[in-house]
Amino acid sequence: MTIKPYKHTVQYYETDRMGFAHHSNYIRWMEEVRSDFFDQIKWPYVKTEEMGIISPVVSLECKYKHPTTYADVVSIEISVEEVKRAKFRVSYVMKNQNGDLVCEAASEHCFLDKAGNIVRMDKQFPEFYADMLNLIKQ
Amino acid sequence: MTIKPYKHTVQYYETDRMGFAHHSNYIRWMEEVRSDFFDQIKWPYVKTEEMGIISPVVSLECKYKHPTTYADVVSIEISVEEVKRAKFRVSYVMKNQNGDLVCEAASEHCFLDKAGNIVRMDKQFPEFYADMLNLIKQ
Amino acid sequence: MTIKPYKHTVQYYETDRMGFAHHSNYIRWMEEVRSDFFDQIKWPYVKTEEMGIISPVVSLECKYKHPTTYADVVSIEISVEEVKRAKFRVSYVMKNQNGDLVCEAASEHCFLDKAGNIVRMDKQFPEFYADMLNLIKQ
Amino acid sequence: MTIKPYKHTVQYYETDRMGFAHHSNYIRWMEEVRSDFFDQIKWPYVKTEEMGIISPVVSLECKYKHPTTYADVVSIEISVEEVKRAKFRVSYVMKNQNGDLVCEAASEHCFLDKAGNIVRMDKQFPEFYADMLNLIKQ
Repeated sequence: MTIKPYKHTVQYYETDRMGFAHHSNYIRWMEEVRSDFFDQIKWPYVKTEEMGIISPVVSLECKYKHPTTYADVVSIEISVEEVKRAKFRVSYVMKNQNGDLVCEAASEHCFLDKAGNIVRMDKQFPEFYADMLNLIKQ
Repeated sequence: MTIKPYKHTVQYYETDRMGFAHHSNYIRWMEEVRSDFFDQIKWPYVKTEEMGIISPVVSLECKYKHPTTYADVVSIEISVEEVKRAKFRVSYVMKNQNGDLVCEAASEHCFLDKAGNIVRMDKQFPEFYADMLNLIKQ
Repeated sequence: MTIKPYKHTVQYYETDRMGFAHHSNYIRWMEEVRSDFFDQIKWPYVKTEEMGIISPVVSLECKYKHPTTYADVVSIEISVEEVKRAKFRVSYVMKNQNGDLVCEAASEHCFLDKAGNIVRMDKQFPEFYADMLNLIKQ
Repeated sequence: MTIKPYKHTVQYYETDRMGFAHHSNYIRWMEEVRSDFFDQIKWPYVKTEEMGIISPVVSLECKYKHPTTYADVVSIEISVEEVKRAKFRVSYVMKNQNGDLVCEAASEHCFLDKAGNIVRMDKQFPEFYADMLNLIKQ
């Protein structure tokens, strides 16, 4: 399965007085990408939540390579880097409309039930676990 | 009872590429003010939520008079304009550190229980209702 | 000319702990709509800025009718209400994917040059002024 | 010189529908901390900007240890980790009002002039450079 890149158009309210998109917004775009990714692999996050599972961010890293600003269209590729029983790690490559690399990033997530207990995906959601494993970048 | 003005220091991430605080942030500062207001009158919003009551914004108006930017300290006065059984209206006057009027605003709120039903404050929370009535600007 | 409605998909980071999109985000969506509107009428805001003109928000009003939440698709219609020499007023009608009215709003804007002086659109940008006048809702 | 921890009160608008402060806000709090830090060491960022120097984020890392929510008071300690001629690295330790570790993070920054050229702090701002070096955590 091929994941289509996600496109985010930089909004005016995302810029700061340096004239560029504020660095905190890239973290939000990463969430937009994950939301789109889970839609693409047919495990929409809305459904995961309905099953009582949330997937908070455990850690993230972000390298800013080139600024972006209002009206830029950022194309973001997501790759599954690692899938463990209760955790997964994805990476992101962001490019602007000219193909310039603007940001490289990664985030790790776990799965929790409503009581805050860690959910073992391999046991409780074996199909989702298998789908994620299959998506690991070779 | 006198309500002390709330102070908000404008953050860098609140500015946009015009060089000023983005207008959407004033709406967030109004929420900060209400939070502080409910603390001051000893009805902290955290407790209201614990009682199962939320208080969404029904409407708002905002007039932007003078821009603010990073490191400005905005002093915001809140006044209770109207208190009805299931609704209240507050207004806000915002001034910068030089005393310039930067924004005038107002917001209306209702009270809902967890099922989304309107809560009659006069019946279910008569003490809160009485306290709010007493705060109406003369 | 017919303006196509703008669509905004509600992001997870736009929700708050009530479970709904935070009311301040609707103000940001209004900006997204204006940006798209100026693209549609061939006066992209990026170009207006390059000409040295900014168009800050002078005032706004917003009535929240129905909550929205993560993954909702909000369709927003914009209408030009009033065009004056140095000011214009637009209104917004927002509906969710089920056609429910979620928000009605309006905003007023002026035009300023880089020195902060008011720009008379009829004199300095007569074509833009004429285009805006033609778009007034009958 | 001892740097006093910065305190951030979590706002309602910073929470998401998981019920916790959205992870992107911690990145914004880090900026609040740096702003306060530069004030404490008498190199307020407003002045650096007036001198024509901006200091964008080059990279960041963030480990989320424990959630925070509305009305929590997060105390944030900043430490200077590394100072190079054109770059510096700071780390952050965030604790809630109960002393629980909520987040560990770090960010790297460079210095640029208005033309986007890298500024050598040791040559162009030797006093600032010396002050930063002196603050490196032993």
